[in-house]
This record gives sequence, structure tokens and C-alpha cells, in this order.
Amino acid sequence: MAKQLKGIAASDGVAIAKAYMLVDPDLSFDKKTIDNPDAEIKRLHDALDASKAELELIKSKAAKSLGEEEAEVFEAHITILSDPELIGNIEDKIKNDSVNAEQALKDVTDGFIETFEAMTDNQYMQERAGDIRDVTKRVLSHLLGVKLPNPALIDSEVVIVAHDLTPSDTAQLDRKYVKGFITDIGGRTSHSAIMSRTLEIPAIVGSEKATTDIEAGDTVIIDGMHGLALVNPDADEVAKYEKMEKDFLAQKAEWEKLRDEKTLSKDGVHFDLAANIGTPDDIKGVVDNGAEAVGLFRSEFLYMDASELPSEDDQFEAYKKVVEGMKGKQVVVRTMDIGGDKQLPYLPLPEEMNPFLGYRAIRISLDRTDLFRTQLRALLRASAYGKLAIMFPMIATVAEFKKAKAIYEDEKQKMVKAGTKIGDGIQVGMMMEIPAAAMIADKLAKYVDFFSIGTNDLIQYSFAADRGNEKVSYLYQPYNPSLLRLIKNTIDASHKEGKWTGMCGEMAGDQTAVPILMGLGLDEFSMSATSVLKTRSLMKRLDTKEMKKLAEKAVTEAETNDDVIKLVNDAIK
Amino acid sequence: MAKQLKGIAASDGVAIAKAYMLVDPDLSFDKKTIDNPDAEIKRLHDALDASKAELELIKSKAAKSLGEEEAEVFEAHITILSDPELIGNIEDKIKNDSVNAEQALKDVTDGFIETFEAMTDNQYMQERAGDIRDVTKRVLSHLLGVKLPNPALIDSEVVIVAHDLTPSDTAQLDRKYVKGFITDIGGRTSHSAIMSRTLEIPAIVGSEKATTDIEAGDTVIIDGMHGLALVNPDADEVAKYEKMEKDFLAQKAEWEKLRDEKTLSKDGVHFDLAANIGTPDDIKGVVDNGAEAVGLFRSEFLYMDASELPSEDDQFEAYKKVVEGMKGKQVVVRTMDIGGDKQLPYLPLPEEMNPFLGYRAIRISLDRTDLFRTQLRALLRASAYGKLAIMFPMIATVAEFKKAKAIYEDEKQKMVKAGTKIGDGIQVGMMMEIPAAAMIADKLAKYVDFFSIGTNDLIQYSFAADRGNEKVSYLYQPYNPSLLRLIKNTIDASHKEGKWTGMCGEMAGDQTAVPILMGLGLDEFSMSATSVLKTRSLMKRLDTKEMKKLAEKAVTEAETNDDVIKLVNDAIK
Repeated sequence: MAKQLKGIAASDGVAIAKAYMLVDPDLSFDKKTIDNPDAEIKRLHDALDASKAELELIKSKAAKSLGEEEAEVFEAHITILSDPELIGNIEDKIKNDSVNAEQALKDVTDGFIETFEAMTDNQYMQERAGDIRDVTKRVLSHLLGVKLPNPALIDSEVVIVAHDLTPSDTAQLDRKYVKGFITDIGGRTSHSAIMSRTLEIPAIVGSEKATTDIEAGDTVIIDGMHGLALVNPDADEVAKYEKMEKDFLAQKAEWEKLRDEKTLSKDGVHFDLAANIGTPDDIKGVVDNGAEAVGLFRSEFLYMDASELPSEDDQFEAYKKVVEGMKGKQVVVRTMDIGGDKQLPYLPLPEEMNPFLGYRAIRISLDRTDLFRTQLRALLRASAYGKLAIMFPMIATVAEFKKAKAIYEDEKQKMVKAGTKIGDGIQVGMMMEIPAAAMIADKLAKYVDFFSIGTNDLIQYSFAADRGNEKVSYLYQPYNPSLLRLIKNTIDASHKEGKWTGMCGEMAGDQTAVPILMGLGLDEFSMSATSVLKTRSLMKRLDTKEMKKLAEKAVTEAETNDDVIKLVNDAIK
Repeated sequence: MAKQLKGIAASDGVAIAKAYMLVDPDLSFDKKTIDNPDAEIKRLHDALDASKAELELIKSKAAKSLGEEEAEVFEAHITILSDPELIGNIEDKIKNDSVNAEQALKDVTDGFIETFEAMTDNQYMQERAGDIRDVTKRVLSHLLGVKLPNPALIDSEVVIVAHDLTPSDTAQLDRKYVKGFITDIGGRTSHSAIMSRTLEIPAIVGSEKATTDIEAGDTVIIDGMHGLALVNPDADEVAKYEKMEKDFLAQKAEWEKLRDEKTLSKDGVHFDLAANIGTPDDIKGVVDNGAEAVGLFRSEFLYMDASELPSEDDQFEAYKKVVEGMKGKQVVVRTMDIGGDKQLPYLPLPEEMNPFLGYRAIRISLDRTDLFRTQLRALLRASAYGKLAIMFPMIATVAEFKKAKAIYEDEKQKMVKAGTKIGDGIQVGMMMEIPAAAMIADKLAKYVDFFSIGTNDLIQYSFAADRGNEKVSYLYQPYNPSLLRLIKNTIDASHKEGKWTGMCGEMAGDQTAVPILMGLGLDEFSMSATSVLKTRSLMKRLDTKEMKKLAEKAVTEAETNDDVIKLVNDAIK
């Protein structure tokens, strides 16, 4: 039997392919005194030439498989390798200090990196520091005769094995060849896991030891449904998982047939199935997967992908693109949710001991009303182009919501007076993600048009457990009756005032949670676009009257997270 | 009219005295090349001699006013100043490098400090690093001809003005002369504020600009009731505040008469008024202030004041001392609540991005059951000497409580089998300080003997706002109906199962909260010992039937923290 590795199931599907180790090799070296500087300078130039040739190859491959824009970064690297000042400095260092090329390279590039990184208010130079670091690594690898992983050069089917996948790693992956991946670290909501679902690549995260237990060229099976990897499986195992893959693809094809259907329960009750997006480019996936709305448009990308505060016009264009792309279906935009783990280079925030409990989201918006008003004006202008709704993140009290809403009304009145065209019936709601707010949902429901439950934060605060901290990950308990009661509180309060409640956290697409949420009367389920059809298929099989009974039991009788899982498993088998 | 400074009212009372600036002077200097090393070495020795003379004086004063033990630290400093290796190294540096004495002193002591601090597993050497740092500061001050503040030398009545007061600062204060203090930073629950209440010194914290707006020798009035300081008041103002001080002392004397009375409301309902303590030495204050129990004994001091894990016997002795000192009145001991902002040098915890949402308290105890079992055995043994109760901090789920209780039962059975004497009817409860737990108080109430609401943490998690972070301090809202509902949930659930609920956070002694808490039916109020008599006096004037109506309104009608303050003010005037 094959060696097995367990991790967190990040993205459904099965992959079987050779392992590709996306792991940095050992690039350490000793400082040496050399007698023959000319020979050392020749070693340097050989390494530079090899690096350039390698980069040219990567660049042309990347341009073809990933697009010209993705390939540009490699052109920048080639330019650095041809910089006479940089190379001159390294040569001088070899000659004057009689050190080996490795040491001279490091000393000189360290100097550049330090200088560039010190320009903390200059995003461009900061990025150049990163480029020099990458280039140095590449030249060092050739000096030391070891091989760097080059994901852009992959030209056969592989399973990627990595400690973690950064955004720049995933940008270089060619989906044609990358059949699956497994990482050492990360959880269901880490960047790598979210990306795997967006790209629909079977994936396992948080396996702890993928990079130590798997070697380059091993055959690896990734079972993304169960978070299980098999290393060098035997023929029976391969056959079993090939069948599982076939079944999964067949099921997916079944789901695809539901793309243009309405979302109805077995007894004909309609639910809104929506998708979460991060950029206007994600709209294609939303439409392809048949989502009925955008339940959460995270506006942060506008702030995080920029080198300065985005202008009102830039924001307007982005919101307009999304609203138009959804062709009259509703788009809920969340106002700026920065702070916490999301920092902006051009807007320094205070150093905090507990950033998740700090100055973030609406707390910044109510303090920096200049930024907030700019965003609201852009949103109001975009509302003329479709059905737009706005929600405020991290509202904890009635006073905060009223303050935010008053600023919104003020900007709206100014625009009406100025004759600017804005949409009709813009709904203004709030994220429900702080326990104190959920406790007074009845009071808040009088002022909002809707609630959208953000389960990731709501769980984190309710259980006082950082969702990124593995030491307390056992307290991520989405089914715990305590959390279900806060959710029920919220839904009931909104209905009592004739308002609606959505959910845009991880939980809305969780197949164990969905039956209970249907029973609790949740109106809108917003999730990764790739989970929409699977969820529509599940809902079709469930009767809301039975789910009501199930939810009632979960909320009143169950004591623990496990109790609720058992209840659900017994009810829907 | 005098200049006014506003801050946070930390400790009741009025003080009028000259300002004493407990502020480090500017000790910066330039590195200089010197021609005459002998003259420089003489400068060094003059400064060393002056420092020694000053320390001898401080030491003898400290021994008289604060006790021999407190004075020992200064003896250690004198010893360092006479160390031939240290002085020899500085002299060599002056001669060999031709630098001024300031630079030579700094270079040499920096070397020692670095070496000692690198011994991270040696608490003793770490403390020596601190001593060398203090001594260096003193010698530098003499070299530069500036004056260091010497709190131990204060011999007339003063108001201390400081950026912040550290535990070692407060240890050096002579209560005979220190009439009040004011700091730039800190909140109601900061170390300096808690100390001011324990020492019964009128105090203001968080004034932001005390050290810049007050100068040495200014006359300062501290109004600790209202968090107001007056700088160089006129005669009318002095007269007004002298009257206020007289009234306060008269009221205090009235309160003192209540010391041996039971705590009864106007309509004769009894409440338990208890005190929070940090060490066995605090028992005197508890008894002096007529508290009826110890509602919270923070066992952390045993871990934090030690250089290694405290043994079972050491813990037993401490618990026994407290239980015996309370002479049959109940003592609730909270098991180890480390992690978060409380670190132990000998028990390295993981670096965490959000320590308040991390690995702490019961989460550590359930993971490191070896430490937990040792503590439970010590507690069980101490239970034979009085009325002891045990509670677990940071319980979030039913599963956690059951796990902790099972470990307790296991140790108890072992001791019963071994014939070890333990007390009858030891109650085992939990802190209620995590929103998820308060949401399922009905389920938890089946398993606990009591709840003790920890408001500082419960507020922090409910509002997702770090209580130490000034940027979000507006979210410290103890009267917000959301929080009151969590409290009501907890109290009602405990009563339904025939159990009781106490409160051991800051809020239990808050004069605005007490009327509502009485109305909600809270059974035990545990607070700073110095707040007990004031609270007993307040309770005597309040009718529980009216408070019930008030609480009902606060929980159902009010929308905001301010709404509730208004309700209370209207109700009790």
C-alpha cells in the first residue's frame, strides 16, 4: 500500500501525476579567499549567461501559456542581469576583496536590496528589491550548480508539492499541466486554498510534511474531497482513484446541467445562490457557474493592487464593470475592509498587538471619512448601471451603523442635488461578523436593508480563536450550536423587520452547513463560484420542512459541534 | 483659572501637591575623540563615585521606607559599580580607542548586556542585564551632568507625573509622600490603574500629555473621581478641591462603618460582595475592606514571579495561605491563565499574530496536562484548609469544560484512593468570557457548579476590540445591550439549573453597572478590595424590584451603550 499523507481538503476532484517540487534548493555557501580573480570572474559570467538563457526560455514559455503581461517580470530580470553597474561592482568586489563570486554577488546585491527597501514610501523601488532578490537566487543556483524550480517551464502533467503557494507562484502555473497540488501549511481559507477552488484544481493544504515525505518524480494521487494524498500508489489504488475521478467528473457534468436552473428545494422553496468575487475579472466564473447574484464583492483589491489610494474614477470604473457584467442581477459591494492582516504600503496603519481586534474595516472608514466618502461616491455613480447594494464590514454597534449610513445619505443627497445619475433602490446593509452585533440584531434590523453573515470572522471572534493560528484551529467550529444561535438570531431579526439575510463566509458553501442554514431560513447563500452548482444540486434534494426540524434540533438540543455533524449526517445520509 | 488636563479616572480621591517628574532625562551624547585619556578616566571615576554615593543614599532611604528586601536591588547596583573587570574594560577602551568616557561606557556595557541577554534560558543573567542597564544610565547621568529621577528619595508630599508606571516604579514609591499620580498612557485596567486602586492613591491614567504639560514643582490637583487634573490652581480652586477631598474622606469613613455589615439591598436581598486578588499578600486588604469572599484568585503570579515552573508544594503553600487567611469564606481560584499578554521566560510559547485570540489559559492546560495536573493536585490538597472553589479560564465549548473537569476528577479520585485529605464540596466552575460560551450557557450550566463572568475579555471578544488598543477603545462598551444580553443569558441559565453566577471583571465594581447587575440577578460581585465598601453602600440604597425593571428596559429597549447610561442615571439619580 502506498504511503498516505493527510491534510485539509481544499478543492474537490482527483489528480494523479508525477510530483513537481516547488521548493527552494539549499543555496548556502561559504565565503572563500581566492587566488585567481580572473577565473572567478569567468565563473560569474558563466552563471550570468546561463541565468539569462534560462530566463529567455521561461519568458517565451510564459508569454505563450500565461500571456504577455505575466511574462514581463522575466524581462525585468533579464535587464537586471545586463546592468553594467551591478556586474562591475561584483567584479570589483572579487578583485579587491579576493572573495569567491558567490560572496561578491551576495555583498553587492544585499547593498542594492537594502537601499531600495529603505525607500519605504516608494512602492516601485520596493518591488525592484524583490526582483534583485529573485535574480540573485537564480545566479547563485548556477554558481552552485543546483537547480531552481521553474514552474513556468512545466510541460508535462504534474502535481505541485510546495511548502506554501504565494500569489506570484499561482500566477505562474499553467493549468493545462498542473493537475493538483499539496502544501505543508495553510487552512480552508488560506490564499492557496481559495485559489485552488477558483482554478478548480484538486488540492490539499496543511499536510505538514508534503515537502519532506514526497520526492521529485514520485507518483502522487491527490484526493481533494477527503484531503488525502497517496505517494507511489500500486495499480489497485490507481484504478480506484481513476474511478473516483471519473465519478467526480460525471457528477460535475450533472451539476453543469443545473447552470441555468433556479435554485429550488425539493418542496419548491427558492433560495438565492450567489458568488463571492475579488476582482471584476471574476465575473466570468460567476456567470459560467450560473450564480444568481454577487453576494460579496471584496473592494479591497482596488486598494491592495495599487501603489496609491485609488481615485474615485478608478473605483467607479471597477464597480461599473462588475455591475454591468451581472446584467441586472444584484451585486453586493463591501466597503473597504483593510487593516487586520491586510496592509497597504501607502497608508501606514499603527502597529498593533492583536491586529484582528484592532483598527480595521469600518473603524478606519469612520475615522478616515475622506477615503470612505470617495468610495461611496464611486459606488453611487456605479449604481446607475445595474443593481448595486452596499454593505459595511465589522459593524459592532447601532451607533456605528447609523454613523456610516448618515455619511452615505449625505453623499447621496449631494449627488442628487448635483444631478448625478444614480440607481433606484440601492440597498444598504452590513456584514454580521461581530458577536456583539449579532446579539442586538433586532435593533440593527430596524436600520439596515439586509444582513450578510461573514462566518470566518464571526467564528473567530465568537470562539476567541485566530483562524490563522494552528494551535487553536480546533476552535473553528462552524456547526457549534453557539454559532448557529447567533446566525438564527440574525435571520429571525431580519425577517421580523421584513429584511433579508445572506451569508458570504466559507460556511455558505459547506455541504454540512447548507441543510441547517436552509432550515434556519437563510435567504441568500454566497460562496466560491465553483461551489454554486454543487450546492444547487444538494438543495434540490432537501425538503425545507424537514430541514427546519433539523435546524431546530441543532439549535436547541445539540451541545457540541460534533453533535450537529451527527444530526446532519443522520438526517440527510 | 488653572490649566486642566483630562484623562481616565483610575482611582478615587483628591490629591493636591507639587509635581514630581518621574521622567527619564535626555541621556544622548556624541562620540568624541579625546587627546587626554587620563583626564577622561578621571571623569569616569568621578561619575562612578557620585553614582555610588547616590546609590548608598537611595539604599538607606529605601531600606527604611520600603523595607530591606526592596533595598537589595540598589546593593546589587553598587556591586556592579565596583566590578574591576567592568571598570578596567572601560578604562582600556578610553585609552586604546581615544574615545570619551560616555562612548567607552556604552560600548563596554552594551557588550555585557548583549551577552547576558543572549542567555535566554537563564532568568538570573537576564535580570543582571537589566541591572547593568540601570547602572549605566546612572553613571551616564553624572557624566552628562543631568539628574535622574530617584523616586525612593522623595521626602515631601508629591504628585507623581510619569509617562507610565512600571511595577518596579510602583515598588519604589513611599505611600507616605506619594499623594497621587498622573500618567500619559494606560486605561482603567492597565497595571498602573490597578495599582492605584490597590494602594488607594488618587490617580489619573491616559492623560496623553501629563509629562509635557506639567513641569517639576508645579502644584497639581488630581481629581481621581472625574479623571481631571489642574495645574497651578488658584486659591478658589484649591479651596474647592480641598472641600471635595474632605467630603470624599468623610464618605470613605461612612463606608468604613459598613465593613462588618452584610451586603443587603434596600429591600433586604443579599448579594455576595467579594474581592479579586493576585497574591496571598492581598488577603489583608480583602479582610480590611470587609469582603465576604475571594471571587477571583489569579494563580498566574505563581508562574510569573518565578524563574521556573512552580512545584506542586510551592503552589499548595500559596493556595493554603489564601484559603486559611479567609477563615472559611470562599476562595475561587482560577487555574493558570497565561499566554496572551502574559509570557513566562521558562515556558516558551509560539509567536502569534493575535495572542489574545491564541494559545492561552485552558487551551494551554488541556494541551500541557502535566502542568494542569500539578496545579489541580496542589489545589485539591489546599482544599482541606478552608472553602476552596476552582474555575477554568477561557472555556469556549462544552467539550473543553468536560475535558478539563474529567482531568480534575481523575486527579481527585487518585488522591482519595491515596488517602490524601481534601475538602468537602469543592465547587468547580468556569470563567464566562468567550461569546460562544455565553451563547450556550444553558448547556454549560448542566456541567458547572457556577459561572464567573470575566467582563474584560468578554467585552474584548464580543466587540472584537483589543482592550489595550487606543484606536478602538471606544468599543469598550460595558453597558451596551448586546453585552447585557450575554450576561443575562448566563445568569438565567445558571439559575435554571440551580447554580450561581458571579462576576470578577472590572464591571462588577462599576457604579453604573451595579444597579443593572442587581436587576439581572447576579449572585456574586467580585472587585478590587477597595471598591467593596463603596459598592455595599450603593447596594443598600437600591431596591431590587426597581432594579429588575431597570435591567429589563436596558436589555430590551435600549439600543446603545449611551442609552443604558441614561436609563441608569434617570433611575437612580
